[in-house]
Amino acid sequence: MSKIVTFGEIMLRLSTERHLRFSQANKFAASYGGGEFNVAVSLANYGIPAEFVTRLPDNEIGACALKEMRKFNVESKNVIYGGDRLGIYYLETGAGTRGSNVVYDRAHSSMSTITKGAINWEDVLKDATWFHWSGITPAISQSAADECLEAIKVAHKLGITISSDLNYRSKLWQYGKEPNQIMPELLKYSNIILGDIDTAFFMLGKDKVNPNYQNEKSLPILYDQIFKSCPNLKTVATTLRYSVSASHQRIGGILYDGKSVYNADVKEVTPVVDRVGSGDAFMGGLIYGLVNNDNDKQRALNIAVAACCLKHTISGDCNLITLADIEKLLSGDSSGKVSR
Amino acid sequence: MSKIVTFGEIMLRLSTERHLRFSQANKFAASYGGGEFNVAVSLANYGIPAEFVTRLPDNEIGACALKEMRKFNVESKNVIYGGDRLGIYYLETGAGTRGSNVVYDRAHSSMSTITKGAINWEDVLKDATWFHWSGITPAISQSAADECLEAIKVAHKLGITISSDLNYRSKLWQYGKEPNQIMPELLKYSNIILGDIDTAFFMLGKDKVNPNYQNEKSLPILYDQIFKSCPNLKTVATTLRYSVSASHQRIGGILYDGKSVYNADVKEVTPVVDRVGSGDAFMGGLIYGLVNNDNDKQRALNIAVAACCLKHTISGDCNLITLADIEKLLSGDSSGKVSR
Amino acid sequence: MSKIVTFGEIMLRLSTERHLRFSQANKFAASYGGGEFNVAVSLANYGIPAEFVTRLPDNEIGACALKEMRKFNVESKNVIYGGDRLGIYYLETGAGTRGSNVVYDRAHSSMSTITKGAINWEDVLKDATWFHWSGITPAISQSAADECLEAIKVAHKLGITISSDLNYRSKLWQYGKEPNQIMPELLKYSNIILGDIDTAFFMLGKDKVNPNYQNEKSLPILYDQIFKSCPNLKTVATTLRYSVSASHQRIGGILYDGKSVYNADVKEVTPVVDRVGSGDAFMGGLIYGLVNNDNDKQRALNIAVAACCLKHTISGDCNLITLADIEKLLSGDSSGKVSR
Amino acid sequence: MSKIVTFGEIMLRLSTERHLRFSQANKFAASYGGGEFNVAVSLANYGIPAEFVTRLPDNEIGACALKEMRKFNVESKNVIYGGDRLGIYYLETGAGTRGSNVVYDRAHSSMSTITKGAINWEDVLKDATWFHWSGITPAISQSAADECLEAIKVAHKLGITISSDLNYRSKLWQYGKEPNQIMPELLKYSNIILGDIDTAFFMLGKDKVNPNYQNEKSLPILYDQIFKSCPNLKTVATTLRYSVSASHQRIGGILYDGKSVYNADVKEVTPVVDRVGSGDAFMGGLIYGLVNNDNDKQRALNIAVAACCLKHTISGDCNLITLADIEKLLSGDSSGKVSR
Amino acid sequence: MSKIVTFGEIMLRLSTERHLRFSQANKFAASYGGGEFNVAVSLANYGIPAEFVTRLPDNEIGACALKEMRKFNVESKNVIYGGDRLGIYYLETGAGTRGSNVVYDRAHSSMSTITKGAINWEDVLKDATWFHWSGITPAISQSAADECLEAIKVAHKLGITISSDLNYRSKLWQYGKEPNQIMPELLKYSNIILGDIDTAFFMLGKDKVNPNYQNEKSLPILYDQIFKSCPNLKTVATTLRYSVSASHQRIGGILYDGKSVYNADVKEVTPVVDRVGSGDAFMGGLIYGLVNNDNDKQRALNIAVAACCLKHTISGDCNLITLADIEKLLSGDSSGKVSR
Amino acid sequence: MSKIVTFGEIMLRLSTERHLRFSQANKFAASYGGGEFNVAVSLANYGIPAEFVTRLPDNEIGACALKEMRKFNVESKNVIYGGDRLGIYYLETGAGTRGSNVVYDRAHSSMSTITKGAINWEDVLKDATWFHWSGITPAISQSAADECLEAIKVAHKLGITISSDLNYRSKLWQYGKEPNQIMPELLKYSNIILGDIDTAFFMLGKDKVNPNYQNEKSLPILYDQIFKSCPNLKTVATTLRYSVSASHQRIGGILYDGKSVYNADVKEVTPVVDRVGSGDAFMGGLIYGLVNNDNDKQRALNIAVAACCLKHTISGDCNLITLADIEKLLSGDSSGKVSR
Repeated sequence: MSKIVTFGEIMLRLSTERHLRFSQANKFAASYGGGEFNVAVSLANYGIPAEFVTRLPDNEIGACALKEMRKFNVESKNVIYGGDRLGIYYLETGAGTRGSNVVYDRAHSSMSTITKGAINWEDVLKDATWFHWSGITPAISQSAADECLEAIKVAHKLGITISSDLNYRSKLWQYGKEPNQIMPELLKYSNIILGDIDTAFFMLGKDKVNPNYQNEKSLPILYDQIFKSCPNLKTVATTLRYSVSASHQRIGGILYDGKSVYNADVKEVTPVVDRVGSGDAFMGGLIYGLVNNDNDKQRALNIAVAACCLKHTISGDCNLITLADIEKLLSGDSSGKVSR
Repeated sequence: MSKIVTFGEIMLRLSTERHLRFSQANKFAASYGGGEFNVAVSLANYGIPAEFVTRLPDNEIGACALKEMRKFNVESKNVIYGGDRLGIYYLETGAGTRGSNVVYDRAHSSMSTITKGAINWEDVLKDATWFHWSGITPAISQSAADECLEAIKVAHKLGITISSDLNYRSKLWQYGKEPNQIMPELLKYSNIILGDIDTAFFMLGKDKVNPNYQNEKSLPILYDQIFKSCPNLKTVATTLRYSVSASHQRIGGILYDGKSVYNADVKEVTPVVDRVGSGDAFMGGLIYGLVNNDNDKQRALNIAVAACCLKHTISGDCNLITLADIEKLLSGDSSGKVSR
Repeated sequence: MSKIVTFGEIMLRLSTERHLRFSQANKFAASYGGGEFNVAVSLANYGIPAEFVTRLPDNEIGACALKEMRKFNVESKNVIYGGDRLGIYYLETGAGTRGSNVVYDRAHSSMSTITKGAINWEDVLKDATWFHWSGITPAISQSAADECLEAIKVAHKLGITISSDLNYRSKLWQYGKEPNQIMPELLKYSNIILGDIDTAFFMLGKDKVNPNYQNEKSLPILYDQIFKSCPNLKTVATTLRYSVSASHQRIGGILYDGKSVYNADVKEVTPVVDRVGSGDAFMGGLIYGLVNNDNDKQRALNIAVAACCLKHTISGDCNLITLADIEKLLSGDSSGKVSR
Repeated sequence: MSKIVTFGEIMLRLSTERHLRFSQANKFAASYGGGEFNVAVSLANYGIPAEFVTRLPDNEIGACALKEMRKFNVESKNVIYGGDRLGIYYLETGAGTRGSNVVYDRAHSSMSTITKGAINWEDVLKDATWFHWSGITPAISQSAADECLEAIKVAHKLGITISSDLNYRSKLWQYGKEPNQIMPELLKYSNIILGDIDTAFFMLGKDKVNPNYQNEKSLPILYDQIFKSCPNLKTVATTLRYSVSASHQRIGGILYDGKSVYNADVKEVTPVVDRVGSGDAFMGGLIYGLVNNDNDKQRALNIAVAACCLKHTISGDCNLITLADIEKLLSGDSSGKVSR
Repeated sequence: MSKIVTFGEIMLRLSTERHLRFSQANKFAASYGGGEFNVAVSLANYGIPAEFVTRLPDNEIGACALKEMRKFNVESKNVIYGGDRLGIYYLETGAGTRGSNVVYDRAHSSMSTITKGAINWEDVLKDATWFHWSGITPAISQSAADECLEAIKVAHKLGITISSDLNYRSKLWQYGKEPNQIMPELLKYSNIILGDIDTAFFMLGKDKVNPNYQNEKSLPILYDQIFKSCPNLKTVATTLRYSVSASHQRIGGILYDGKSVYNADVKEVTPVVDRVGSGDAFMGGLIYGLVNNDNDKQRALNIAVAACCLKHTISGDCNLITLADIEKLLSGDSSGKVSR
Repeated sequence: MSKIVTFGEIMLRLSTERHLRFSQANKFAASYGGGEFNVAVSLANYGIPAEFVTRLPDNEIGACALKEMRKFNVESKNVIYGGDRLGIYYLETGAGTRGSNVVYDRAHSSMSTITKGAINWEDVLKDATWFHWSGITPAISQSAADECLEAIKVAHKLGITISSDLNYRSKLWQYGKEPNQIMPELLKYSNIILGDIDTAFFMLGKDKVNPNYQNEKSLPILYDQIFKSCPNLKTVATTLRYSVSASHQRIGGILYDGKSVYNADVKEVTPVVDRVGSGDAFMGGLIYGLVNNDNDKQRALNIAVAACCLKHTISGDCNLITLADIEKLLSGDSSGKVSR
């Protein structure tokens, strides 16, 4: 099985424990995460050779992030070094009626100051079969967007499967460009897109349509517009999330392959230990599913939803679950029995 | 906006973590709280100048309580010093079918040994618009009851709005007086009373009536009896709490203004991070609501209920939430989405 | 009231906190537990003189286990010393759709290398009225099985009530014997058996029958087969557990006394703080109930179910609850109100 | 070997960790200790049957103290229950030039409100060979002083060895009596006194003499005055402590048996993990030494000094060391080698 | 006593606990500090009204810093808000032969992007008697240097005492200017300078002289050169630090007032709990000493050295000690006795 | 630079924090270590490709050990899986006069049940330049000794440098063989031996000689006897450790290369954060020194001693220091200054 490469930013995550508010905390739990890194960890956990490419500051905090990659068996040989700081995000975990709160402190990070051409993508991708990126990278700076496009083009040229997670964050995109000025060019090489229809439309410069995901028949006509903008597209998928409260979610998923719409059963997720990274967990499950079951889109989607559900029980950004955990849940066993 | 003054006791709270029983704990989380202080913190969080008046021991533990007041922007300039100890309460946090357990160790505290006349209320209240006290202070000692009455009389003389939280605690009232020997004289100056009908009746020396809060029409005749005993009364309100378990509450509220009964929708509160202080959170929300929306009793009640619900997600006695948190919940968003 | 003796293994339990996976933990919470010890702690908490007999290594870790017995008022005077190590089990606490995970490291423990005759049972049991053991002890080694049989025979000779918890663990039984080669001889002296019908059948060498516990009428004919194999048997009981998720259980119980089937109402248990030891909590409650209410089997069963439910709210193996906690729950109060 | 009984108060100790000041702590380490209890734990650790008699509140916090006694194998069967609260002391651990700081909150404790005659001393002491008390008990209240005298008289009548630790605390003695009004009557039955000459003189109403402990020859004439006031006295001993800093102590000891002065070599103690209870550790070592080596006063003193030194390496009030630890230090091995 | 104003940056400090290296930590202790803020906290602890002026981001992390100011009674009413982030520094605490390690992440902080004129210094300083700043502020950006000069000029105009801590950090000064291009203009208004001779020379553009602080007679001629460059100067002082290891320091101090050289006795500081902020502690002590004992320079210096020594025993940037702690140490008592 | 391979056991280390005794701990810090693994981590930290070969149980605890190898960049591709358990050691960290205490629980570990031939050493060592083992592996079981000999023979055949750490642990060697029956055969291939003369003599079956390391001239004659038994030997080195207390060590070192004796200056090490693994740190430093400075034995020894000293400041088995740390100490800077 040849390797999957993901490209993006890894941050230091500083979170309060036991639902404390920031003003109550005199310590922060420290871990490391970021959308595309989280996908790489998922894949490594499923036994797929995974590599993460990023730019780290050449200091002790950057070294901690590197050690985390190694610990979870994510290849780091093409990481480059430079810039001033590792991006940070602060997380206050909500409960019940109080949502979690993220304070970003990622501006001026080493990744956001990456320069175009800093990475030799021909070399990085020469033995890869899949390249994954997300809408966060082009959102942090023009040069990151440029380098991301560079990677995508090389991947496309090499015939590598390209998956794109739209990952729209309104607090980013501060460098003077709108998503629809940048994203269409990047998305057009995508083979797989993760995201809901309206986010895709927004990024592609189309009007909002408020799709009704319960009405499957209404969807192909909408999805097909995305396919039209992205000529290489084969699959679009998204998590369907019904938030009862910060502690209780209902998770489903939907996938369209240009022909049919696939739906996964909604699962109850309660309590929520940590929902950050659950979209990345879906993506990780989906890639695994498509790599291993390309002809069984329903199963790929089911794996993605199960992975996403299980992520909510894991503390930290990364989905530290195994294929066995997923299989158990897919087999219908959500009993949470003690294994002994 | 001129200041609101609350008067009462602040205690050291020693609680076990992660649902441990007392016998399992080799450390206690230390925080500071008490009914009337908690109300002051709520108000300060909503941007209203709030002052807390109490008596602290002149030792390092008292100094910690003082620092907590300052941290949360509660004015402490009229705090007086003396006596031997800061009162303590031990808290073991329950879960599911096991309720939380409080062990009081507040006898002989500096506040309970306050002497009548120790505080110059004319001076303290001269630039205040609101005075808040609760039934805990007159329950701890005769001299505390005396000083509380003193404060109330001065507040009344100065034309300040007076709010009274009945706060009946059967484990207190150990100094030889029954509530109905003390409370009627204190309550009669109240403009706002927080408490249920039967507690008010009990404190006013009336027989228990088991009011049916579902039957709104039956309530005015009962509330009017309280209004009769308290000639300055304008508003009576209470939380309506339906306990499913220690981890799951349903919270509503009811308010009567001498003319109409107002009801707030019941909200689901699960999980319960910490329910201590949720009544004070209701009171803080109600005061804020009445100060800012005096003509809209329904909105004031809704704010009080939302504040009470959100308190259940906060560790510690004090309701560390903002107006934005309340508005979000009032707007119907209890989804607990990550804000990012 | 004379003493109850339990016999088995006590282990060091190393568990991750706050739902962390093993790979995320850089510390383990350390406590001590084991099925038969847990029963002894339950009984001591209910005010019944309880003694635990085991074999401990003569090192500091064994001394910690001994101190834990003492702390919870379990008599330890007949504990014997020798062997190399205290058995360990690692516990990763699940949540929601992810079940808890136990990794045993109990082979070669001091208890498993006990030799037949190491304990003078005549002396240990001379002033006891009840002897309790479980299917774990004969599962760990031949010599432990031999010594357990020895104890049972002496107990039987002395006319002491014998309770047996089937406690089948498929990961044990590694020493070359099948349960049905060992257990029938041990079980035949039982006065009380805890376990479900199919586990009893399996251990007694009978075929699986998939009993329908909802259909009470169908049960006596099955239970009577167990009675036939165990001529001293008077009571068989079992927890009925419906797992919604790792965080949500529904707990009932059923008891047959040779004449009638008794059923306890199913209770909701959510959240689950810790479910390990909940079967032992049921056993502890049942023994207490039978000792104190021998003629009221329904009440004994209700106590067992309430004890089992409450255990799910307690961290650690041992059911650190009081009779007052049980009575409160039995009286219908599962409101989890703060006691103050 | 028959039992040694100690009588006094056990408190909840709330200490900050890692040298934090009170105002920095949001948790307190919770342990249990008190001079006479600490002596009992020392003796139990050395294998001597030890019993502690006190009065505990009948609440969960009192129950925690009781569990601590049991854990360390101190007999608690004659503990009595009543009163309102367990005494507390807060501890801030110093370092270097900053000394540790204790804030007492022990007034009104269950022990201080004990009534004369509450304990049946004839029964408690009937199978004891030694009774130990300290000057703290008569310092907390008149009734505690009365009950202490009662115990001493019964012990004397039964011919039991009586050891008295002077333990002067200037912050106590708040109930209107001076030490010299109370202590002479209690001390006169002593067989062993622990304390320095000036403290003894002060308590016996004699003038301060500033003894020079380096000049051994000058001491007998001073000690003999104590012997004159205490006709049953056989041994007086004291720790000699030279404080370099809060983190570095030099510890020696001196003992007089009515004939000779014995001196123990000064040992370096650095770092100091926790010095609270080191005097009690000396006392525990001394009692052990005298019980087992009555004719070898030098060895008894050496044991006391070694025990005192080792206590400084142990967190908490109680000296959790073994005879082997003491022997190793006495043999000259202070190398702190890893034992493996 | 009228207020003292300090101006500078406050940062979030993220430190590992118990001497862990960054790569071992999965949590960081979070506190708040910065040179000029630390001075303000010292002064507030000594009972002097102190105000800190800075620029904070308008987010939850900035709000935490604000709460810390309030907690320690530092006036914050002239704090301004804006910019993107609170500066951070990571701290790994060394021991013995391994020094502590600081990783700065303070670029682009709200304070560094302050604009000239953002603060109305006339208003801020109108009721102040003292203004304190340090060489860190002009080192972080041109605009911060500009605003600092603005403050100094206003202070000078208002006749307020100005103290300047040279505080040279080679890792700062990244914006294209050398210290000697910026500092002379700022320093020339100083009445008090804290720093060693060579740092002053370096900042004033003079050559290094390697002064011999043991040779007091050689110093005035050097100090006088500083006085020449700073016409308002009255006092220059510096800590003299002899580092034995990261855990053992020897601390003295020297002061020159234009006429005489004053020397403070060297004190042993071991162990070192935390040395960060010890220079600020010296400064705080010096200001207090000069404010209260202007004619007794020796005493002012002694207070500064004692405060500096005590700081090494306190965790965190801020010197949480009292005047009583200082007096005790000055009186020669470094015994670290337990106060009880 | 080609890789260095070490072979041995990695264990779970469970240690109490803050000098707590085992009986005080309710949690254990969990880390992973073992003599030969620790050497590999040292080398990886110095930038030398390092690989660790061992046998791990195929369970979650083994997986944690594997993640630790990866985190610290130690190659794990030739680790084999099987057996039942990861070995454990419990550690109680002493202070001052109380030494640390290790309780081993490593019998029956996966490594001790390795079978001869389980590892394909030809393959493992084909691209290695150095092989390191220690006397622990042949001490745990006959089969481990056999496999170790196998590895040594292959390394010898391939012309790889072989270093042997004598590492005598008296508590091991339980399988019926004495060191002198096993070790001579293994040691005879050594190029480098780490250990003191008497341990070498003991393992080689020679009589104890109590060498005087202060008298350098007396040493060659003794060392030469070791050289005689080990015909490939080129270097013998050992740490010289003078234990003042558990918290204060003096560390030197000595090396003999068959011609000259080299001595390193003794360094003060205080406080001791953690001394476990300091011998392995010496070994790691020595290998690095010899690899990089083969002609400068003095420098190699100095590096080894510096590495050993620095290790005492690091928590855990592994020496998490860099070459820069070593260079700083070698340059004479033990000041522990803050780097900022």
